[in-house]
Amino acid sequence: MANEQWAVTFADIQAAAERLGGLIRRTPVLPTSGLPDCDAVSVLLKCENLQWGSAFKARGATNAVMSLSAEQAACGVVTHSSGNHAAALARAALQRGIAAHIVMPRNSAAVKLQAVRQLGIEPILCESTAAAREAAAAEVQQRTGAVLVHPFNDPRVIAGQGTAALEILEQYPDLQDVIVPVGGGGLLAGTLLTIRALRPDVRVFGAEPEWADDARRSLQSGRIEPALRTDSIADGLRTPLGSLTFPIIQHLVTDILLAGEAEIRAATGHLAAVCRLITEPSGAVPLAVLQQHAEVFRGRRVVVLISGGNVDDIALIAGALTAGSQSP
Amino acid sequence: MANEQWAVTFADIQAAAERLGGLIRRTPVLPTSGLPDCDAVSVLLKCENLQWGSAFKARGATNAVMSLSAEQAACGVVTHSSGNHAAALARAALQRGIAAHIVMPRNSAAVKLQAVRQLGIEPILCESTAAAREAAAAEVQQRTGAVLVHPFNDPRVIAGQGTAALEILEQYPDLQDVIVPVGGGGLLAGTLLTIRALRPDVRVFGAEPEWADDARRSLQSGRIEPALRTDSIADGLRTPLGSLTFPIIQHLVTDILLAGEAEIRAATGHLAAVCRLITEPSGAVPLAVLQQHAEVFRGRRVVVLISGGNVDDIALIAGALTAGSQSP
Repeated sequence: MANEQWAVTFADIQAAAERLGGLIRRTPVLPTSGLPDCDAVSVLLKCENLQWGSAFKARGATNAVMSLSAEQAACGVVTHSSGNHAAALARAALQRGIAAHIVMPRNSAAVKLQAVRQLGIEPILCESTAAAREAAAAEVQQRTGAVLVHPFNDPRVIAGQGTAALEILEQYPDLQDVIVPVGGGGLLAGTLLTIRALRPDVRVFGAEPEWADDARRSLQSGRIEPALRTDSIADGLRTPLGSLTFPIIQHLVTDILLAGEAEIRAATGHLAAVCRLITEPSGAVPLAVLQQHAEVFRGRRVVVLISGGNVDDIALIAGALTAGSQSP
Repeated sequence: MANEQWAVTFADIQAAAERLGGLIRRTPVLPTSGLPDCDAVSVLLKCENLQWGSAFKARGATNAVMSLSAEQAACGVVTHSSGNHAAALARAALQRGIAAHIVMPRNSAAVKLQAVRQLGIEPILCESTAAAREAAAAEVQQRTGAVLVHPFNDPRVIAGQGTAALEILEQYPDLQDVIVPVGGGGLLAGTLLTIRALRPDVRVFGAEPEWADDARRSLQSGRIEPALRTDSIADGLRTPLGSLTFPIIQHLVTDILLAGEAEIRAATGHLAAVCRLITEPSGAVPLAVLQQHAEVFRGRRVVVLISGGNVDDIALIAGALTAGSQSP
């Protein structure tokens, strides 16, 4: 099943896990309850919203930074990101004591801009197009010699993201299914490499919004499809797949399942009201998929990866708490 | 140090732990970060807000219900509570398949009334005075033969609450200090019995609001002091100590430390904004104490018990999220 041409191997993930020891959190796996529309026999939440920086992105970014040679590290790192990777890379660079140049679109969520500023780094603002972001990062790279660490299309990042699945297998060996969100595909690709290497019997699903279904369309057409709209509430999952992540996903994924916007909102609300966890909508998409495709998970033991907690739409959380559901 | 006249022994707590296996959650111990005004070298959160029913009360209530003989159980259980114990006892009774009669003051928080109703039990409403609550419960007891399970002044409840500390010692053997909230004193008494039996070197602090400082005054006067005001935001901690909890606390506690209302609000906000955890203000009081008495914990390895997550004041959580602090 492994392919010599893929950019990442399971050995890279094992090396990442060793490198990351003590630098990231082993996040807990928590039971949930009171899920309407759920036929699974057990559902556990892998809580990456409780990771450093409140997102799994700490894994990939930290692995990338800690993989650099001393010579590479001396010039610092650069990335372009509107999301959690920006703060994750900034934090990893701080930990290693090297410079981080963070290019962010001017229209990034306030909470994500602030996360970078709170680490003492002023983001380099640019227009929001992919071309403008890449150009700004390339300019920094040329000027400073900094190493580019792409949010997902980077072997070191994919390897780092694959460490979450290593923990899941240790924490819940009885699992039968894993559902992880898919945006650029770094987390899904890393998860697939880990699970296929250690537990080929476990099914691995990617979860994305109906309004950002590019990964599902890519799977169907056999090539990387662009995003067709950019208005899903799950802002972290609007990105198309990368050239390194797509082939891994194409060959190893069980399926990509979609969730509607209302279901994503409801799942985010359930996690707040019943589980007392603050998650961002992107992080709740796997739970929404579990409920919207209940028949797929009937009678199964499922782990749902909650990818992040940096929510911008506070009304979503407050509304769910006010509605006041309680865990039974 | 143990006292033959105390209502509970460490053996009772060990028996409770065995009885509770599988019926309650082993809640995670999570690191925190970015705490202003903190001189401890490490601070871990024992997250009882992630317990069933979002509060540690599941431990004591479930132990009480599962301790009943078949004959006792046949008549059901009764309690009076304005808080988390009500839903916890209702859930435990459901698990055992027996009746639960829940007396609640008419002015209980909506979220707590709803929690009981969602379990399919209609609370018996009464006036909010202690006398009215006790009278209503006594009436039910007489009419139905149900067993009274007091929210804290009950040996089975105290023994159940003591199981959280058993988990803490396993999860973080390096700890030097534990801080737990004190209302009626069930959790603090149980914690003390466990820690004194297994790790007498560990300091155990009770944490209560300045505006509900009855436990501290009781420690000073040597007798159970009444509450003098009832307006602390930490609504779960306004209760005076009980006749069974006070002697244990009096003899075993390291100290009772107080937190101001502003500090309690700030701690609740920090747990939401940085840790992505929803807690009720009572649950955040130990964290507020850690920060307000930073000198006491300088250079120490501390576990802070977050006792519950059933927050009524949503604005507190929403405000902290909007302010948008991020974990570093």
